[in-house]
Amino acid sequence: MLESLQNEKKLLPERVAEQIITLIKDKELKEGDKLPNEFEMAKQLHVGRGTIREAVKILVSRHVLEIKRGCGTFVCQNPGKIDDPLGFAFVSDKKKLAYDLYELRMMIEPNMAALAAEKADEEGVAELQKIADEIKESIAKGQDYLEKDIQFHALISQLSQNSVVSTIIPVLQTGISFFIHMTNKSLMRETIETHQLLVNAIADHDSQAAKKAMEQHLKYNKEKMDEMMKEG
Amino acid sequence: MLESLQNEKKLLPERVAEQIITLIKDKELKEGDKLPNEFEMAKQLHVGRGTIREAVKILVSRHVLEIKRGCGTFVCQNPGKIDDPLGFAFVSDKKKLAYDLYELRMMIEPNMAALAAEKADEEGVAELQKIADEIKESIAKGQDYLEKDIQFHALISQLSQNSVVSTIIPVLQTGISFFIHMTNKSLMRETIETHQLLVNAIADHDSQAAKKAMEQHLKYNKEKMDEMMKEG
Repeated sequence: MLESLQNEKKLLPERVAEQIITLIKDKELKEGDKLPNEFEMAKQLHVGRGTIREAVKILVSRHVLEIKRGCGTFVCQNPGKIDDPLGFAFVSDKKKLAYDLYELRMMIEPNMAALAAEKADEEGVAELQKIADEIKESIAKGQDYLEKDIQFHALISQLSQNSVVSTIIPVLQTGISFFIHMTNKSLMRETIETHQLLVNAIADHDSQAAKKAMEQHLKYNKEKMDEMMKEG
Repeated sequence: MLESLQNEKKLLPERVAEQIITLIKDKELKEGDKLPNEFEMAKQLHVGRGTIREAVKILVSRHVLEIKRGCGTFVCQNPGKIDDPLGFAFVSDKKKLAYDLYELRMMIEPNMAALAAEKADEEGVAELQKIADEIKESIAKGQDYLEKDIQFHALISQLSQNSVVSTIIPVLQTGISFFIHMTNKSLMRETIETHQLLVNAIADHDSQAAKKAMEQHLKYNKEKMDEMMKEG
């Protein structure tokens, strides 16, 4: 019923595009796998070859399929997902982008930390502690820890068990990786402290403490960002 | 300084890809515009043609450029953005997707409404009232109002003046358009009421009231969704 409602207002090529996605999922086609040819798909889905061509075009524009001329139609790498899917590279005003990303992270991440505290199991907590320890070690050695910091927040998003949150968080972080990189350099003590508070709160399944620790963590970063902006 | 820090850890083709993006922005190249050929770009950016080819590949995978064999390299439609950029079509468990999207909207939209209340000008409020009135009219006539409902939330995201929020909200809504479509059908009175509360709060620049009205609006939808899920 959901499927039919979802479809009732869409045009034929759009609907056929969705049938092709279903076909990819059902046959478990992976990156680089070849699709049946136009003729076969037209027969299988009971539509004309022109409709198949239109549907394939739609899926090329969604980064699901790619056409290799003379070879056929293939499934893309990470079908339906692209690096920088929100097009941050095309935003000219990077300062405003950084503030907007911060504002959005402030809406999502404290709540995400609270969910992680509710839902994390022992294995997840152990993994989080491990990354926090690695970050501490990197700081002690004067090494860069940007990648691990992104990993830390990505793992909390996974522990929140919200699939959309865990898709979005790495996207938002990548958008401001250069700011994270810069604020990291001068927030070493604060990072170690608030990361450990977060791990503890999640281990104790204390949602409110996890929320507060994440708020504090983001606030430190915001203050540093403000300072940097003033200095230009 | 930001640019150089952003770049210091990236490989050459990645850096050249970013230079090509800068070139697209500087020359204000639009959808369908042709890029200079490999040879010219290599000369202009002081790198080898192999590096240009690698950089172009990266940008093809990001839906920024497309190669038409024998014709050249062109700027994509909506460079860097695709429909369904988070790949919701590939999520098998649509029920969980709907719950996860609801959970995330509950984190973002009340805060977004509060920002809109702080920042909206008279023109924005008038536009919002207009859409709310159109929805009311559609409901009275028994017409579908899904498109207008999406517009209503998208306008509030624009009034929040947060560019990332206004990019994300339509993406999240499209992901659950079939649920919105279904809940809409039985939440006509509640929709009219909470939409009007939202418009009033934003017009009064009352952030707290706007936040509460959005929470209430989403709660009605959640309750309806729960009911629907139970019924299968």
